[in-house]
Amino acid sequence: MSKEVNDSGFSHIPRAQGARLINKDGSSNVTKEGLSFIQRFSMFHFLISMKWIPFVFTLFIGFVILNVVFAIIYLIVGIDGIGGVENLEVISDFMKAFYFSTQALTTVGFGQLHPITDFISIVAAVESFIGLLAFAMATGLLYGRFSRPKAKLIFSDNVLYAPFKEGNALMLRLANSKESQIIDVTADVFFTYIDTKGDEPQRRYFNLPLEISKINILATSWTLVHPLDEDSPIAHFTKDDYEKSDAEILIQIQGFDVTYNQMVNTRTSFKANEMVWNAKFKRIFGSASNGEPMINLGELSTYEKV
Amino acid sequence: MSKEVNDSGFSHIPRAQGARLINKDGSSNVTKEGLSFIQRFSMFHFLISMKWIPFVFTLFIGFVILNVVFAIIYLIVGIDGIGGVENLEVISDFMKAFYFSTQALTTVGFGQLHPITDFISIVAAVESFIGLLAFAMATGLLYGRFSRPKAKLIFSDNVLYAPFKEGNALMLRLANSKESQIIDVTADVFFTYIDTKGDEPQRRYFNLPLEISKINILATSWTLVHPLDEDSPIAHFTKDDYEKSDAEILIQIQGFDVTYNQMVNTRTSFKANEMVWNAKFKRIFGSASNGEPMINLGELSTYEKV
Amino acid sequence: MSKEVNDSGFSHIPRAQGARLINKDGSSNVTKEGLSFIQRFSMFHFLISMKWIPFVFTLFIGFVILNVVFAIIYLIVGIDGIGGVENLEVISDFMKAFYFSTQALTTVGFGQLHPITDFISIVAAVESFIGLLAFAMATGLLYGRFSRPKAKLIFSDNVLYAPFKEGNALMLRLANSKESQIIDVTADVFFTYIDTKGDEPQRRYFNLPLEISKINILATSWTLVHPLDEDSPIAHFTKDDYEKSDAEILIQIQGFDVTYNQMVNTRTSFKANEMVWNAKFKRIFGSASNGEPMINLGELSTYEKV
Amino acid sequence: MSKEVNDSGFSHIPRAQGARLINKDGSSNVTKEGLSFIQRFSMFHFLISMKWIPFVFTLFIGFVILNVVFAIIYLIVGIDGIGGVENLEVISDFMKAFYFSTQALTTVGFGQLHPITDFISIVAAVESFIGLLAFAMATGLLYGRFSRPKAKLIFSDNVLYAPFKEGNALMLRLANSKESQIIDVTADVFFTYIDTKGDEPQRRYFNLPLEISKINILATSWTLVHPLDEDSPIAHFTKDDYEKSDAEILIQIQGFDVTYNQMVNTRTSFKANEMVWNAKFKRIFGSASNGEPMINLGELSTYEKV
Repeated sequence: MSKEVNDSGFSHIPRAQGARLINKDGSSNVTKEGLSFIQRFSMFHFLISMKWIPFVFTLFIGFVILNVVFAIIYLIVGIDGIGGVENLEVISDFMKAFYFSTQALTTVGFGQLHPITDFISIVAAVESFIGLLAFAMATGLLYGRFSRPKAKLIFSDNVLYAPFKEGNALMLRLANSKESQIIDVTADVFFTYIDTKGDEPQRRYFNLPLEISKINILATSWTLVHPLDEDSPIAHFTKDDYEKSDAEILIQIQGFDVTYNQMVNTRTSFKANEMVWNAKFKRIFGSASNGEPMINLGELSTYEKV
Repeated sequence: MSKEVNDSGFSHIPRAQGARLINKDGSSNVTKEGLSFIQRFSMFHFLISMKWIPFVFTLFIGFVILNVVFAIIYLIVGIDGIGGVENLEVISDFMKAFYFSTQALTTVGFGQLHPITDFISIVAAVESFIGLLAFAMATGLLYGRFSRPKAKLIFSDNVLYAPFKEGNALMLRLANSKESQIIDVTADVFFTYIDTKGDEPQRRYFNLPLEISKINILATSWTLVHPLDEDSPIAHFTKDDYEKSDAEILIQIQGFDVTYNQMVNTRTSFKANEMVWNAKFKRIFGSASNGEPMINLGELSTYEKV
Repeated sequence: MSKEVNDSGFSHIPRAQGARLINKDGSSNVTKEGLSFIQRFSMFHFLISMKWIPFVFTLFIGFVILNVVFAIIYLIVGIDGIGGVENLEVISDFMKAFYFSTQALTTVGFGQLHPITDFISIVAAVESFIGLLAFAMATGLLYGRFSRPKAKLIFSDNVLYAPFKEGNALMLRLANSKESQIIDVTADVFFTYIDTKGDEPQRRYFNLPLEISKINILATSWTLVHPLDEDSPIAHFTKDDYEKSDAEILIQIQGFDVTYNQMVNTRTSFKANEMVWNAKFKRIFGSASNGEPMINLGELSTYEKV
Repeated sequence: MSKEVNDSGFSHIPRAQGARLINKDGSSNVTKEGLSFIQRFSMFHFLISMKWIPFVFTLFIGFVILNVVFAIIYLIVGIDGIGGVENLEVISDFMKAFYFSTQALTTVGFGQLHPITDFISIVAAVESFIGLLAFAMATGLLYGRFSRPKAKLIFSDNVLYAPFKEGNALMLRLANSKESQIIDVTADVFFTYIDTKGDEPQRRYFNLPLEISKINILATSWTLVHPLDEDSPIAHFTKDDYEKSDAEILIQIQGFDVTYNQMVNTRTSFKANEMVWNAKFKRIFGSASNGEPMINLGELSTYEKV
């Protein structure tokens, strides 16, 4: 029997039947309450984690807002202090002030519009300073987003209950979808279910030992194999047991990404309805037309019944 | 008996009764003397560690000072070398030079003010060069501050002396207040007190073994449990002993922050007056109204007497 | 017998005779199919991995294309909205718009050309905003390329079958060609060949134990030595065996680069035709003319027959 | 007897008597020959490792050279293409072109000088593009230099042969001179000498076991203690042996810097003439006037004879 894991960081208290502990994309599934938004909020996490299009849109909205604010300030301190406004063929004083603001904030400073009074000169100097800091911040964020290692591992859609040696094993296939190289790759597989034998239902966790739990380089695909032998805590689990006990198989893959020169982490999970019984993965490794070794990642999930 | 830790990096010589070895925020409590300011000072540490508002203020002051310095230089080399100054409706020559300086330093360069002599041209070129380097430095600092992983772990206010299995245990609860995920989390707990049994008082250090010292993911909360059994160096410490011996419990938590893709470290400590005897933590894990698992971090420190 | 490695991350299915598993530069040799270009493509990997000249050329082409796009927009919204164009001695309206675009995108904003209408003012503001973000991105990429640790290890051209103690050993020499210091260096050597004894040919992998597999600092050169004794899985391999079994020796070196303050990884491989039998490396360590220790890395591969 | 270290990364061949293997600042002492300058040179290492004043000077020289090159190009393609030059009160056409160049390269673009012909417009656009990339590179370098962790450990001037328990020990004291916190600190100490007992002199290496080789936090000072007991390979070395055998004690300290959130490494070494016999370190830990614990780092090296 594999040793029970006392604490995997999740609670032992059962939750709603069927709810995942870990989402398919690896994020966790727990709502945090009792803290104010400010206490929970991390600006960096927010700006680094959002998708690219909302991110650029957020920057652009910030740019527009800053310019509106400064345009209003210029109107207040006196737009006559901006030289050259009389030559603009523009619909309103506000737009004149807005255009001057954009030219100060981006430091493009064409000069057709230029400060001539003390007030405008000072506000324009502050605006250029703020513009430089804001774009410095944006530079950092863009780099941070771009350089953050994202192991793009792809997993088979199902965990297979497959024949293995004399008996059976749980099998799962994964591969690196990108050209980057991932080395020193380790896999940890956990199994969790709700044990109803005791006084009250309790969620239990086990580590599932793997045939191979570390590989040197993830060059092709990797099939994780958990033999259902005497060392397995779930050797005698039936299909019915999986479904009734709200079982979940948690996967964690760690490796070193050579392109980013950093550790990468990927997590995912499988529920009972993602298991296929008595099947084995189809071979996806062969030779390309030029004789070079080739792997067909489009077929990563394909299996055949046995 | 847990093995005594020979050296935790702190001295064995007792200090003033009640002084903390580690502050609540994890910083250490030792004054360094005998080195000059330059030897001790680290500009990066200073600028990275200060709060955001003083940091931006520091940058702004630097911006103003640079402009004052260059304004004076322009006055010295001759403000007549700046074209367009006659059109400014401005209170003094110094301010004219100051505004020209801001426009060169930020590279906004409106051009209403522009160099027409050799001296002014050269100084303005140098100022723009310095401005670009200064904002390059600010860019780096802003990114460095922003991207520095800060595990925002929150700890219960107290260490509890709580019933555990057949006996008792010291318990302490912690959680991640942010949305970011922290994985591969390890906890080390040290105990230190002043031993007065020998010839002269000596501070001693022990490692306190934990029921679970490593978890896979800090998804909810984590209760650190040090069983007060035969393996504990402090199994027979009474409430009185804690207070009289200037005891302190030092906590160190390490993990890998998935958002920042870096190791994070948090330290804190508890003194005798932060211990509560014969109490246990209240349950803070339940279901949100939508049936999703939920944790109430606002109640992290709540306990009930037993 | 050294334990067989069950999975090195490569397939056990033999491939074309003579094809390398790992190229001399450490990259792997597997074609990935079945995924769309978008699924496989990583922009960061592409821009970080390409050589410097194509990289700068790519940035420049991007700069030209952006300006062409904006020049066309300016022509569409009306070039009369750009003040000062009448003073340009330039061949076409398109070029006038193009030059104005370059001055907005780089934020140089000379001002001879300047926006006077709403449409042109808005497009110019957006262009300056885009220019700043684009150069922010370029800043990040340049830093990412520059700061990425590249252990410039050089290896001897050949693996030698050399006399060692009472018997023989496989030997391979490596050194750090740069001035940077690499510490805590570990070496892993794998051996793979096609075993034709079974029903169908199968590629097998072994770990080759080294006399010394970790050194403290790679200050001079390091000779990896695999003794061909009873612990070696290939003690009785003949020269003929190496060639017929499509053997390959895979090397992986890891260390900590003190300049970059990061882990560095280098891989390479040797095929049968890169082995030299009954030879030993010439000594390359001596004294420079000033009496200082000196190593002649130009002679790293030189050997003499024994 | 401590096990002999077979390879520390240095050669076993003796070098000039008295030459250090590791310099006091931790750099190694081996000259590399046989490679061309290009093969050995690493631009990043060069620019990151040089001191601040030469670094800024190098950037400034690069700035001047770039401007001279572009000034010459402007003269060649025709300075009449630069509008506004007639208004400059400047000594030569070259200087006019030079000033225009500085205004394009820094993107300050005052506009008094502005391009009016195709050739000048194109060259100015290219120059602004190059300027932005150059300052992007400088930004990265400045950040790289600034954010590179430098553990500023200070070591006692001498290794002491001091009384310890029933016998003696080698002792060495170190501390962190900066406010930053270094945690999880490990020390490795090696001993090397030239053994003349065999046929020809051979340099041998030993690991010296420490009383404590890892501490949790380097809050105050840390005294490394190598007991000269039956486990020590150098228990019976006399003062004479140290001097005659060209002995050297190599120190390597590793830790995790909390400010930089990165591993830091420091190395140093001691020769026989830096050893003091029969002395012990003076106590440098006490209380500051405000009762807070205090360490006097200025006295780190002070010892008293015993």
